[in-house]
Amino acid sequence: VAILGTGLVGGSVGLRLIRARPKVALVGFDRDPAVARRAKERGAVTEVAPTPQEAVAGADLVILAVPVDETEPALRAAALADRAVVTDVGSTKAAVVELGEALVGDRFVGGHPMAGSERHGIEAADAELFEDAWWILTPTSKTSSSAYRVVGDLVTSLGAKPIAVDPVAHDALVARLSHLPQLAASAVVAAAASQEGQESLLGLAAGGFRDVTRIAASHPDMWVSILRSNRDAVLEALGGLQGSLDTLRDAIDGRDWEGLRSFLEGTRRSRLELFAKHVHGGDPVALSLLIPDRPGVLAEVTTAAGELGVNIEDLQIFHSTEGGRGRLELVVAGEKAAGLLLERLRALGYHVEIGLPE
Amino acid sequence: VAILGTGLVGGSVGLRLIRARPKVALVGFDRDPAVARRAKERGAVTEVAPTPQEAVAGADLVILAVPVDETEPALRAAALADRAVVTDVGSTKAAVVELGEALVGDRFVGGHPMAGSERHGIEAADAELFEDAWWILTPTSKTSSSAYRVVGDLVTSLGAKPIAVDPVAHDALVARLSHLPQLAASAVVAAAASQEGQESLLGLAAGGFRDVTRIAASHPDMWVSILRSNRDAVLEALGGLQGSLDTLRDAIDGRDWEGLRSFLEGTRRSRLELFAKHVHGGDPVALSLLIPDRPGVLAEVTTAAGELGVNIEDLQIFHSTEGGRGRLELVVAGEKAAGLLLERLRALGYHVEIGLPE
Repeated sequence: VAILGTGLVGGSVGLRLIRARPKVALVGFDRDPAVARRAKERGAVTEVAPTPQEAVAGADLVILAVPVDETEPALRAAALADRAVVTDVGSTKAAVVELGEALVGDRFVGGHPMAGSERHGIEAADAELFEDAWWILTPTSKTSSSAYRVVGDLVTSLGAKPIAVDPVAHDALVARLSHLPQLAASAVVAAAASQEGQESLLGLAAGGFRDVTRIAASHPDMWVSILRSNRDAVLEALGGLQGSLDTLRDAIDGRDWEGLRSFLEGTRRSRLELFAKHVHGGDPVALSLLIPDRPGVLAEVTTAAGELGVNIEDLQIFHSTEGGRGRLELVVAGEKAAGLLLERLRALGYHVEIGLPE
Repeated sequence: VAILGTGLVGGSVGLRLIRARPKVALVGFDRDPAVARRAKERGAVTEVAPTPQEAVAGADLVILAVPVDETEPALRAAALADRAVVTDVGSTKAAVVELGEALVGDRFVGGHPMAGSERHGIEAADAELFEDAWWILTPTSKTSSSAYRVVGDLVTSLGAKPIAVDPVAHDALVARLSHLPQLAASAVVAAAASQEGQESLLGLAAGGFRDVTRIAASHPDMWVSILRSNRDAVLEALGGLQGSLDTLRDAIDGRDWEGLRSFLEGTRRSRLELFAKHVHGGDPVALSLLIPDRPGVLAEVTTAAGELGVNIEDLQIFHSTEGGRGRLELVVAGEKAAGLLLERLRALGYHVEIGLPE
């Protein structure tokens, strides 16, 4: 396994992977050699390579954990490993998946761990960083099922839960769930700090302000790269936020207290439901479906599961010896999740059965 | 002592006050008799009164802990206790201070604990709620120094740190530090939840989104009352937030990545400094100043301290036996705080000395 970029995320992946698979040979590269050496001292890699090309030589799996705007050269290096499955951890996906598929082909699987820290760098790396977090994968109609499975297994062994989402839908989603809160937190700080002559009173802020603005202390360079790589989706999300603030402003300005109450009641309910919706757990249930003779089945099935909030715990494709058709086996957690997915897949025209055939 | 309103805040005050002063007679009233009974069961009051008038009869101190829009009738009841010092815990202050002084006179001291919870009601009451939190007091030129001292002592015995701020400045401050984050959190939830067909994916949100939107789960009725009572300051603060978002939008839209970086760097620095600015601690230092023969000295001195982030730990006025002039003694924590306040008070024309005279 090769890790290109051994900062917070790459280092955390390495620490956990070595714990999960003690015999793994894990070669790290970082453009700052001191960071790569420190990663080795911390036990986040087993070897350090002097160039990305040497790091990926002979690798079965290459993990890109570089800043968003250094992805392209890292992908070009990874493409030299001609059998390796390649994945990344970037915060935006449409552009990198397009480039990854152009350079690496069907062995590229985009990824994005939904975990992080306002800290950064190898010193902040932590084997527990991904524990129980969602890790979005973005397969497309070009993705090979064996590559998807390798990356899904990697994610699971890091303690995270893989879930598949379409790359473009992913970018719109993170614009709202990650990039928008970041901009809102910064804007709230700017508005608070603009009150002249009252600077020392800002320390009076209670927990609400602290919670809302905590991420405004994040690293600006990282955020500029992220926002830049997702410009269009971020602008659309910002428009949504500005529209919501206009609605609130109009209600307060027009003394429409009932309208204000109903807006706040709606968002309160959304916030309370947000993290309740996603609980699909229970004993593993297997689904088996016949694969029709057309491309894109893997992406269609996995992203359908993602849209339902159903986490695919295991996945395997068995190709028919007669060619053309085959069988896809999925394992999901709990009967409820299995039922939802069964229904959705049948609606999409698949022939699906619960339980694996003998 | 009488407490009108025995919900989260009133109940928490009672629990802590009875622990701090075990012999206190603490009479509670709540418009919901079951809540008042429950407060007594939980040990948050020693007696329950059937009406606010009976609760305040003979009280030395009346604490109003009712929702903002029930303040007026509670104040009218409190005004019947003709020797009692009266204070409140409302989230906005200019209007209630004006009404309090009209009804109660120089014995009214506005207050606002900078602590809370997204929970509410007597069951959530907690003796530790105010521990080490700031508690803003809003004396004016009409406030009697003995009333201020009674309320300051109350706040200290609840574990909180009193600090004086002008009522109008208070309202502008909380609009930015408390009401704006609330609106921003709700607007971020609304923008996220508006993404159709992706509802179940919202649960993928990482810690940043959770932090920013946590307070959006707060009680809408309470927030409508608060926003309504601080409409003008909230509209101004909202304008500031919208301006900051416009700046961010323009930078992203115009691909001004350096401008974006510098905005984010500025708010990062503000956020990091915000809670560092306010640390004035150390051994108590006394200041003694001659009081000139004009009204408003107490408010001027205490709010000057507030603007510097200096917490007045004790305060007493000694009136001269010859009438007209007297001496104000203050105790603050640490030489740095004492030095800052000394300089500011001298700049305001006061004759001040460090240390109490023999």
